[in-house]
Amino acid sequence: MKANTSGILTRLFDFTNERVNSCLESVLSLSVPDQRLIEAMRYATMGGGKRIRPLLVYASAKAVEAKMEDADAAACAVELVHSFSLVHDDLPVMDDDDLRRGKPSVHKAYDEPTAVLVGDALQSLAFQCLSTQKSSLSESTKLAMVQILSEATGAEGMTGGQAMDLRAEQFPIDLSVLENMHQRKTGALIKASVKLGAICNPRVATNILERLERFADLIGLAFQVQDDVLDEISETSTLGKPKGSDRAQNKTTYVSLLGIERAKRKAVELSEQALLSIQDLSPAADELRELAEFMTSRAN
Amino acid sequence: MKANTSGILTRLFDFTNERVNSCLESVLSLSVPDQRLIEAMRYATMGGGKRIRPLLVYASAKAVEAKMEDADAAACAVELVHSFSLVHDDLPVMDDDDLRRGKPSVHKAYDEPTAVLVGDALQSLAFQCLSTQKSSLSESTKLAMVQILSEATGAEGMTGGQAMDLRAEQFPIDLSVLENMHQRKTGALIKASVKLGAICNPRVATNILERLERFADLIGLAFQVQDDVLDEISETSTLGKPKGSDRAQNKTTYVSLLGIERAKRKAVELSEQALLSIQDLSPAADELRELAEFMTSRAN
Repeated sequence: MKANTSGILTRLFDFTNERVNSCLESVLSLSVPDQRLIEAMRYATMGGGKRIRPLLVYASAKAVEAKMEDADAAACAVELVHSFSLVHDDLPVMDDDDLRRGKPSVHKAYDEPTAVLVGDALQSLAFQCLSTQKSSLSESTKLAMVQILSEATGAEGMTGGQAMDLRAEQFPIDLSVLENMHQRKTGALIKASVKLGAICNPRVATNILERLERFADLIGLAFQVQDDVLDEISETSTLGKPKGSDRAQNKTTYVSLLGIERAKRKAVELSEQALLSIQDLSPAADELRELAEFMTSRAN
Repeated sequence: MKANTSGILTRLFDFTNERVNSCLESVLSLSVPDQRLIEAMRYATMGGGKRIRPLLVYASAKAVEAKMEDADAAACAVELVHSFSLVHDDLPVMDDDDLRRGKPSVHKAYDEPTAVLVGDALQSLAFQCLSTQKSSLSESTKLAMVQILSEATGAEGMTGGQAMDLRAEQFPIDLSVLENMHQRKTGALIKASVKLGAICNPRVATNILERLERFADLIGLAFQVQDDVLDEISETSTLGKPKGSDRAQNKTTYVSLLGIERAKRKAVELSEQALLSIQDLSPAADELRELAEFMTSRAN
């Protein structure tokens, strides 16, 4: 993952991994008589994902010169929501993916009922994490975090996008519907990550927040276009899931609508627009800039 | 449902139904391009449940002389969490129940992927509801509500209890494990309902809060024992789900461990202890008292 990334990005990766793993370890130290559910929750979250969303939280917090420790709970919470969505998306009645991050999916490593419950409990844990955080942020900001994350997760956000995606397997959809779907399915949580990082500085200027939101919209879409491209061209071993699984499921994707070359170009263009939208920000936003480039040039 | 209930309880039922339905209508007016998910979320929540948890929120709020309108968001949120748990519990890979509240379960009326997503989105909506509420409560109290509900919902609460329940189908368990399981599976959300109602008065005395929590623990357990009894003795038409489905699934229940008569007696004893624990409270707690009796003498 770290090949061809700059020093500044490598430091952010290391920083994020260390802090998110430590935070996840801590919130997953739950006291229950039956530890199997907790084990499965750890399996779902500690398995070495790319931590893109926590990276965005920290990079955004840094861009507005917030205290990094104030971003910990949000970084952990977005990863919990992301992990929950992967566990449920992989279920046989959903995308039916047996592999995730190069390992058996939760329903394969454990069983389907456990996978349903793991997803449910990870979502609750995300809101528990935000509401019990010991940061220096005000209760007002913590509550705003719950609002941002719940809206991004629910029917108007990620889960609604997933519902649209399931329908896209049954009916052909056009580019505008596909874009709307992606804005919800992956874009909403990516945007939430950037917003959560930004409000770690409660005095962040409105115009900075707006630029960051525009950046997040564009980078979220670029990320999804790239995801469609990678699903088509990457080898299973690199991707950590079966190559071409979208096509096998007859899904409408950027690749199926635009073809592989135009899809690749669109990802680059979106990424460039994203960078333009934050060009006036100080060098404190450099991590965010490099992250944008990384997200659209990644190989898995 | 209202047969043999007192005037005071009938008024609480009507009040709760009206307010919760109105609140659910409002939070389920979501703007999405694909309305099917929202329809299914409405189907899951508006289908005439008993609204026991919202009733407890309002009765508890009244017992501490809080403003009833301050309890609306919490009442709505606990019903959303309860509905989400029913939708997921009914899934074929979970309890595999085709009927719920006398109607086809969500995965029968719609399909399984939709049912997974409906549950996920209802959970998010509960936290959205708490974090965006327009009540007169402080942000500190609203945040405390998120904490109470997320802890009650997650791996240490309801979802953890459900995981224990699934395991109880595979291994015989004893009375103490069964009790622990029930305290989580149904007890946690019932207790949360009472606590959420009580903190609608931010100046509620600690000793009153403790009594209410003890009351909630006992009534939660009584409710579950009664549920086991009803599963065994009620007709499918009254119960709204297949009679004897616990036994058909080889589940350890209070009835399987104690026999039907001792289980019935236990429900009554727990209910009496619950009433004792709040005997010193003012007549403002009368709704809570009558609700306790109703919950353990109900027929469905």
